[in-house]
Amino acid sequence: MNWGLVGGGKASQIGGAHRIAAQLDGHWRLAAGALDIDPEKGRAYGTELGIDESRAYGTWQDMLKSESGREDRIDLVTIATPNHTHFEIASAFLSAGFNVLCEKPLTMTVRDAEDLVRVAEKSGKICATNFGYSGYPMAIQAREMVRNGDLGDIRVVFSEFAHGFHADESDNDNPRIRWRYDPEQTGVSSITADCGVHALHMAEFITCQRITEVSAQFDHCVDGRALEDDALLALRFGNGSVGRLWTSAIAIGQVHGFGIRVFGSKGGLSWHQEFPNQLHFTPLNGPTRILERGSEALYPKARAASRIAIGHAEGMFGAFGNIYRSLHETIAGPGPATGDFPTVEDGAAMVRVIDTAARSAKQGGAWTPV
Amino acid sequence: MNWGLVGGGKASQIGGAHRIAAQLDGHWRLAAGALDIDPEKGRAYGTELGIDESRAYGTWQDMLKSESGREDRIDLVTIATPNHTHFEIASAFLSAGFNVLCEKPLTMTVRDAEDLVRVAEKSGKICATNFGYSGYPMAIQAREMVRNGDLGDIRVVFSEFAHGFHADESDNDNPRIRWRYDPEQTGVSSITADCGVHALHMAEFITCQRITEVSAQFDHCVDGRALEDDALLALRFGNGSVGRLWTSAIAIGQVHGFGIRVFGSKGGLSWHQEFPNQLHFTPLNGPTRILERGSEALYPKARAASRIAIGHAEGMFGAFGNIYRSLHETIAGPGPATGDFPTVEDGAAMVRVIDTAARSAKQGGAWTPV
Amino acid sequence: MNWGLVGGGKASQIGGAHRIAAQLDGHWRLAAGALDIDPEKGRAYGTELGIDESRAYGTWQDMLKSESGREDRIDLVTIATPNHTHFEIASAFLSAGFNVLCEKPLTMTVRDAEDLVRVAEKSGKICATNFGYSGYPMAIQAREMVRNGDLGDIRVVFSEFAHGFHADESDNDNPRIRWRYDPEQTGVSSITADCGVHALHMAEFITCQRITEVSAQFDHCVDGRALEDDALLALRFGNGSVGRLWTSAIAIGQVHGFGIRVFGSKGGLSWHQEFPNQLHFTPLNGPTRILERGSEALYPKARAASRIAIGHAEGMFGAFGNIYRSLHETIAGPGPATGDFPTVEDGAAMVRVIDTAARSAKQGGAWTPV
Amino acid sequence: MNWGLVGGGKASQIGGAHRIAAQLDGHWRLAAGALDIDPEKGRAYGTELGIDESRAYGTWQDMLKSESGREDRIDLVTIATPNHTHFEIASAFLSAGFNVLCEKPLTMTVRDAEDLVRVAEKSGKICATNFGYSGYPMAIQAREMVRNGDLGDIRVVFSEFAHGFHADESDNDNPRIRWRYDPEQTGVSSITADCGVHALHMAEFITCQRITEVSAQFDHCVDGRALEDDALLALRFGNGSVGRLWTSAIAIGQVHGFGIRVFGSKGGLSWHQEFPNQLHFTPLNGPTRILERGSEALYPKARAASRIAIGHAEGMFGAFGNIYRSLHETIAGPGPATGDFPTVEDGAAMVRVIDTAARSAKQGGAWTPV
Repeated sequence: MNWGLVGGGKASQIGGAHRIAAQLDGHWRLAAGALDIDPEKGRAYGTELGIDESRAYGTWQDMLKSESGREDRIDLVTIATPNHTHFEIASAFLSAGFNVLCEKPLTMTVRDAEDLVRVAEKSGKICATNFGYSGYPMAIQAREMVRNGDLGDIRVVFSEFAHGFHADESDNDNPRIRWRYDPEQTGVSSITADCGVHALHMAEFITCQRITEVSAQFDHCVDGRALEDDALLALRFGNGSVGRLWTSAIAIGQVHGFGIRVFGSKGGLSWHQEFPNQLHFTPLNGPTRILERGSEALYPKARAASRIAIGHAEGMFGAFGNIYRSLHETIAGPGPATGDFPTVEDGAAMVRVIDTAARSAKQGGAWTPV
Repeated sequence: MNWGLVGGGKASQIGGAHRIAAQLDGHWRLAAGALDIDPEKGRAYGTELGIDESRAYGTWQDMLKSESGREDRIDLVTIATPNHTHFEIASAFLSAGFNVLCEKPLTMTVRDAEDLVRVAEKSGKICATNFGYSGYPMAIQAREMVRNGDLGDIRVVFSEFAHGFHADESDNDNPRIRWRYDPEQTGVSSITADCGVHALHMAEFITCQRITEVSAQFDHCVDGRALEDDALLALRFGNGSVGRLWTSAIAIGQVHGFGIRVFGSKGGLSWHQEFPNQLHFTPLNGPTRILERGSEALYPKARAASRIAIGHAEGMFGAFGNIYRSLHETIAGPGPATGDFPTVEDGAAMVRVIDTAARSAKQGGAWTPV
Repeated sequence: MNWGLVGGGKASQIGGAHRIAAQLDGHWRLAAGALDIDPEKGRAYGTELGIDESRAYGTWQDMLKSESGREDRIDLVTIATPNHTHFEIASAFLSAGFNVLCEKPLTMTVRDAEDLVRVAEKSGKICATNFGYSGYPMAIQAREMVRNGDLGDIRVVFSEFAHGFHADESDNDNPRIRWRYDPEQTGVSSITADCGVHALHMAEFITCQRITEVSAQFDHCVDGRALEDDALLALRFGNGSVGRLWTSAIAIGQVHGFGIRVFGSKGGLSWHQEFPNQLHFTPLNGPTRILERGSEALYPKARAASRIAIGHAEGMFGAFGNIYRSLHETIAGPGPATGDFPTVEDGAAMVRVIDTAARSAKQGGAWTPV
Repeated sequence: MNWGLVGGGKASQIGGAHRIAAQLDGHWRLAAGALDIDPEKGRAYGTELGIDESRAYGTWQDMLKSESGREDRIDLVTIATPNHTHFEIASAFLSAGFNVLCEKPLTMTVRDAEDLVRVAEKSGKICATNFGYSGYPMAIQAREMVRNGDLGDIRVVFSEFAHGFHADESDNDNPRIRWRYDPEQTGVSSITADCGVHALHMAEFITCQRITEVSAQFDHCVDGRALEDDALLALRFGNGSVGRLWTSAIAIGQVHGFGIRVFGSKGGLSWHQEFPNQLHFTPLNGPTRILERGSEALYPKARAASRIAIGHAEGMFGAFGNIYRSLHETIAGPGPATGDFPTVEDGAAMVRVIDTAARSAKQGGAWTPV
């Protein structure tokens, strides 16, 4: 199928990850792109990547217009542009009848997110949000275990995403860092919206529950920051279970500290993104078991999400690729065999939770409904 | 030196740990005891343990009276009785001029804790609180690193103590579990006062800061419990740093999930009680280093707290023994060479923090000064 | 560039891994293939994968003939056929002027391996051997550390590849297992040639030394096997250092137990394939440091071998893809920027070591020069 | 019971460990000692440790003579003197009717070891050898699992004890290191006899099998050493299973690298001395399970070997203390409830295996019967 990419230019890291992931299984061919804010650079890079000159566009508007008129128009467009442009671009492509995969955060405001949900509904097209970690086979296994009752009633979810890459005070003027703590560019939240959101989404993904209420503490530990670089959230879920979430950008020594632990009445499980091929599961009153990606004892959806034999390290490309594979399967025909991609509703739910958290934090952690 | 024990009878586990720890270095001899609420059993067990018949007492009152009149009176008494009796017994022994090591929690109420501080001050005697984990060599190393500025200014402390041993709903009527969720017997808090307190104390111990403000969420995840079995605390410390703390009794799969991570402007560290001989330290912009108990590169106090060569597993007996060694050194003469034992003020501080947390929790997590 | 594949049909796992790896960076396009021993199936699968009908061949002989005559002939052919066919196919393509990437083992006999080295030399073309693990960034970092003297003089290399997937006696008649212990199909060695060889190659790769002498113990622990399912090798390297190697197929619980530890006069390092993004390095008299893939402190070749930011899990596809990237860079122009692909000499060295080991094992472990 | 100690003076580390371990449970009282080669120092240290002046001896000969004549003579004597004196002292005490716990190695030669076995038999007294690691609860659990058939028929044992504390070439003249590589003082083997022997004993202990044949490679990696600092052993056991063993003193980064993995027809297990409270067990075709010290699911002997609740770190003092507890139970009455202490036959078996290994190594690793 034909795939288009907006954003993800030469300097972007996320663009490379999308290209690898989309093309991993040979389902998607990079057929069109508007890859850079600078039209010239975007076109040049597009042809460098093998896009036909006629489809290496200078702007997403050109791309939208031209692709709309083609017989072999792209079947899916990925939007990997700066956050504040997501809403406009996604809305435009959806309205023109294209399927969309939008980078997170879906939008900058709750209003936009809700609008986009309506636009997507009206269009009848797919609008997916790229919470890529939910493509990891063992995250899928965790969800299947919850769905199948292996953990019983879920009681507590502990989720964290804490790294230390913004800990250096001398980086305050580093442009790579600075914009992240500037409300003009970033919105109401920094680290919670950037990293914490993955931990939030994973909590919803595995438990199949929405967060309904939030009490949040936002702190900035490095002087001069206008947004939080460390946060603690208490959560309530739709089924009555509770959540605890810590996210940080100043946790020196935590390389990519994203992990989740889920506890129910019949068992507990633990998964860590840095070692994604193992899932620890402990049944009530039994010893902990180390479940391995690729094992035949996993649930079918988790098995289907793997491409190589047990014991090999299958990392982020595979996880991310599963999102693209699910999209391909959904667009091509019946429902996905693997991990179910995150939807526009999932993306909008996260925008709402972040907004709620920011409001709660402003009121000293008051419990605030989502 | 002569050592006495109140409580810690045959069925008690903590009694055995105290006896091993106190006698580890040959500094303390179990010379007197009132070991059981049943006088007969207490006397019998005392003599079984080698206490002279004349000092194997039936009640702590007898012990206090008799020891007070002896030339070779005990130099230290450990109080390992049920929590609600700590205040009365500790006060009585202190007032009679005995040094005291009291099990945690120091007392059931803040008022009692503050009274006990005054009693101890007036007596001129030592009143220590048994936060035994602070005797681990690598906890001492962590504290020394903070004291010596290796971490720079402390920003965030993440501490947790979450286990899963109260997760089984069918245990609700098990007497071993039931009393822990009965406010009559346990007070204002269950898991926070029982386990969380160690994580709280360790945070104060390593950072050398007091907690000044608390926002707490208390939840009971198993139906029918009147006290919390899972809690999340946001903390503020005297030096402006913030804390995050999770404690739980229903985290199936976490055997003894007590660990702490401390992040400053120059580095971060991580320590876990189940693997106490390693401390992970990451300097800003450098790789993580695994520091080992027994290494000559540790600070002197951490080195002095070890009894065996690097690489061996030195566990709880040694940690606990360091409390007794510090007490011996302090009582025998000049200040402790090892880890500084937790004082009555430390114990009282914890009673205050738990009480504050319980009040905050009742108000939906309102920030409450300690 | 145009890429061709011989073998790797629908049922094959290795074929899928090659396709993902080759196309990961967009350097190689699957332009031609003879994918199956059954010509019909091979052609069908080829077109299913998007190969032009004219280049979806029924046999490798057809492919060789037809591609030889094309202007847009393939720039590289990967040979992923059964082991006993490697020599013939690789020789034929090399002789016709094609670059070759051959699956390991390069050949079934030392004589064939040495012939193939000569054929490759004479052809002036590249003949690479697919020891894919050497593409892992942290394996490359380990090699660079040795090259740069960070470990001083290498003294001992401990390498192991032990799994448990042939431990089930009831699998003896399982065709998936049986052929591996049949000397007719497998040659002089089973687990050593299949898995141990990766540990052997990694030892040579990281230390940049050839193995010069071998003492080997071959054992079969499951009754009825004609070849070894567990082996222990003592090794001597060209620079006088020694090696210890354990390989097994009956080590229940070891999922993919491939790891290496290298010890020199100035430091030691440890790497494990299941957690490939970390490398433990210990300088003499210093604490162990955890080096992370993606860190800017790594050597340039190791940095260049990564595609995503530090902290993400980058697994086998990336490692394997680095082999293809090196090949592309070498064929396209000047030498590789990343990890240097394993050559035909490397492949032949391994055939010799395995043959030597088998001969040593027959003589009770007598030291045998390679 | 009364306990005596020969050796283990003020500068000795092992002496302190013995005193802690022996007195851990209150079963043994240090009643007599000849603690130092310097009689004056020995007597002074003895009284410092609380030994009655009349039993703080200057020489072991005085101790033997005087204790022999006492009504309250010691019930057990521990011999922790330099290795070459073990035989003479142990023989003398056994012959005089004392129970003996002798440090490893039991003796310097096979002849002496065999003589000592006979002396012990004739005496009717206990002669134990101090392989202290076999007192770890999870080592005992491993043995019980093998005994109960949980692993099926044992096939391969992989055992290692490799550290890096003799890796520094500049230490060659350090007296602390030098004697260890001097055959005059150390005998036929250095690291194998010093550390490897624990790995060998553990292999016999867990599998309940004797090693019957050895092929050994001894290497010295640091110039100027007359004995091996790195060795690889292939082993055969009485029941036909095979062993692989690596031991090293130059493995920089391995702090106390002692671990064992045992593989049978029904399962595999893995245990590491630095994290002694966990045992990994994998049943055939099932996931790995993490068994915890203190769990009620362990075998009774393993449960009985613990003194504190699950989740606490119980280290070397407890392990070592189990040896003393078993001795106490055996001397006091019926057989041991815990881990069965290592006997004089076990100690002699190890002397034989080391001697066999040294002879094999001299012949290039020729298989040599024990």
